[in-house]
Amino acid sequence: MSAPRGNAVIGQSGGPTSVINQSLVGVIQEASQSGHIEQLLGARHGMRGILGEDFVHLTGAPAELLERVAQTPSAALGSTRDKPKREDCEKMFRVFARNNVRYFFYIGGNDSADTARIVQEVAKTEHHDLRVFHIPKTIDNDLRVHDHCPGYGSAARYVACAIMGDNYDNKSLPGIKIDIVMGRDAGFLTAASVLARRRDGDGPHLIYVPEKPLSQDQFLADVDRVYKKYGRCLVAASEGIKAPDGKRWTEKIKENLERDAHQNVQLSGTGALGDFLAETAKKLGPKLRIRADTFGYPQRSFPGFASEVDAREARLVGQLAVRYSADEKNLEGSVAMRRTGQAAYAVEMFLTPLQTVARDTRQLNEEYMCDGNNITDAFKAYVTPLVGTLPVVGSLDEWAK
Amino acid sequence: MSAPRGNAVIGQSGGPTSVINQSLVGVIQEASQSGHIEQLLGARHGMRGILGEDFVHLTGAPAELLERVAQTPSAALGSTRDKPKREDCEKMFRVFARNNVRYFFYIGGNDSADTARIVQEVAKTEHHDLRVFHIPKTIDNDLRVHDHCPGYGSAARYVACAIMGDNYDNKSLPGIKIDIVMGRDAGFLTAASVLARRRDGDGPHLIYVPEKPLSQDQFLADVDRVYKKYGRCLVAASEGIKAPDGKRWTEKIKENLERDAHQNVQLSGTGALGDFLAETAKKLGPKLRIRADTFGYPQRSFPGFASEVDAREARLVGQLAVRYSADEKNLEGSVAMRRTGQAAYAVEMFLTPLQTVARDTRQLNEEYMCDGNNITDAFKAYVTPLVGTLPVVGSLDEWAK
Repeated sequence: MSAPRGNAVIGQSGGPTSVINQSLVGVIQEASQSGHIEQLLGARHGMRGILGEDFVHLTGAPAELLERVAQTPSAALGSTRDKPKREDCEKMFRVFARNNVRYFFYIGGNDSADTARIVQEVAKTEHHDLRVFHIPKTIDNDLRVHDHCPGYGSAARYVACAIMGDNYDNKSLPGIKIDIVMGRDAGFLTAASVLARRRDGDGPHLIYVPEKPLSQDQFLADVDRVYKKYGRCLVAASEGIKAPDGKRWTEKIKENLERDAHQNVQLSGTGALGDFLAETAKKLGPKLRIRADTFGYPQRSFPGFASEVDAREARLVGQLAVRYSADEKNLEGSVAMRRTGQAAYAVEMFLTPLQTVARDTRQLNEEYMCDGNNITDAFKAYVTPLVGTLPVVGSLDEWAK
Repeated sequence: MSAPRGNAVIGQSGGPTSVINQSLVGVIQEASQSGHIEQLLGARHGMRGILGEDFVHLTGAPAELLERVAQTPSAALGSTRDKPKREDCEKMFRVFARNNVRYFFYIGGNDSADTARIVQEVAKTEHHDLRVFHIPKTIDNDLRVHDHCPGYGSAARYVACAIMGDNYDNKSLPGIKIDIVMGRDAGFLTAASVLARRRDGDGPHLIYVPEKPLSQDQFLADVDRVYKKYGRCLVAASEGIKAPDGKRWTEKIKENLERDAHQNVQLSGTGALGDFLAETAKKLGPKLRIRADTFGYPQRSFPGFASEVDAREARLVGQLAVRYSADEKNLEGSVAMRRTGQAAYAVEMFLTPLQTVARDTRQLNEEYMCDGNNITDAFKAYVTPLVGTLPVVGSLDEWAK
């Protein structure tokens, strides 16, 4: 039997990515061709737009515009970091009932999957036939079940390239350079910096992720060892790196941290960690050239530089969410990917229950890390197809040696 | 009469750019076809390599490698920030005499032009026939006489794109966002952020350059006005912005600033200014979402994202430096561009005496600035052809309105 006819709501939530609008456009395109979705309503700023009934009518949006929107970083409908309370979910559900909304598509990370899960539960309790589908999106790549998440490949591509460029910069004007990469609890994005290593001696020489605690003494010993060997040192460190006591370095640095509604400590948008590590490295010598950069929002919203694979998959998970919803047996789920290819990269998509993705996250697999501050070839094999072809580069060392 | 036969030295100096190696490769290619240059020696780390006779023999380097090197950001020969003293110049000149060096090509900014000028003067005093050519390179775009400088277009392209992406990011999750752009004394790079404005309401809403002093009160009043109008505010500010007393804001923030050998205050590689402006903006309300990013080195060394025009011109100034040197009448000079096109963009290249480019720099033209914190259409017309085509983007506002 086919799924019930009715309207659908689509929303975007959490931190933007370079390809989140690919997923949005995937939903819009597929919904317009579906038999079961009558009107597609875009909620402005996620659950806020639902609660305030602030909708954009997306049905009929011109294809030319949609293709441009798909290529534009950041959430075209607007995003939110609000986390709904139980009463918000009940209110959302009433808005859905009033607008004959039978389908709710929510693009986001683990928090958004949790919101989707709660809304679906409330609907079930109230005996309202609302089907809820989560469309994955996160540059952190930290969703459980998912092999990888749309948005990650493009951010990883940016990080790999920024570090690759900085390796040449650091080689040209040698010194100690510290680059801070996004990643609160998971080191996937920072680990992608390993792709910048092309030849012996290339940076990043040290890679620090939140999964492995780091002491100040260890940091100094590591930098000192590299600097003595190469006369320079390029460090890639996650914004969420932790001290041996389990506390984040940033927490130790700054006592008065802002906290958003999810109780996530605000780490981006500040140079404090980079500056602190640079200050720490000064202990190695008063005349050393030491610099720090915090890569910031360009990691998630730099335009014109998305990974092609990532863009294609982001579109596809949006399209598939609508297709899954056309099957009346599917009441809820998150559209996930698993790898099927052996030699060549290939994935298949499947629907996983919301509760398998909601709330809890995952971290960098143990086999992707080694030596406390390094990343394995297994990770390189994992991440390479996700970022796509990197820029062609060359070094005069290839000739002079 | 043709120029004397002899060897040539090429060096790179100052901050790297995305296209400085295009100029290097231009010199290598043209030298190998010239009649007057016998061996081309690449000095590692600029004047340091000359003083230490640390040379790479570039004659005969394979074309395939050179094309890859040309596309690689940062100085392939290594760079330096050292400024030679008079005795260094005398020592450099003796190295040149010993190695039968008749031609010295130096790729860099105003300081490098000054080094080139001094070396040429010493040679003249010593009656040694050394011809010295400066090949321009600076992301700051602050060389006198030059319409624009190779390296600037690519950095401006990066800044325009990063701000464009951040405008969508900020629209998606509204708040006050401050982006710090490179530029010690000249606002050319920060001004390029104006290209991110596509539609009414797009950021950057405020653009602060070092040329126009800014008080904290003015900053707060500006941000407040924009925030009240749009519910968000995106600021692009030069790292070198100055207070009304003429002091840099960063000087006021940090008393213990490192200084390099040119007495340039070190401004990059620290998040201090961005964090300070974000703290300042907090006075507008305790609950405002305020973030700051300091764009850092990716502005000058992000790979795979150079402006095509910039890459082409950078190659050409290198080639032309060698061609100018083939004319025995040309004893010294800097290879400069002037615009010749009316409707369409076109430039012609010419040789300008080293002293017209050395040492002193230029700032953003008065007609490019307006309203204290804004950039004019005249600047947009100036910069547009230098950055090339920007990524295609779209907003749902085009449909929803």
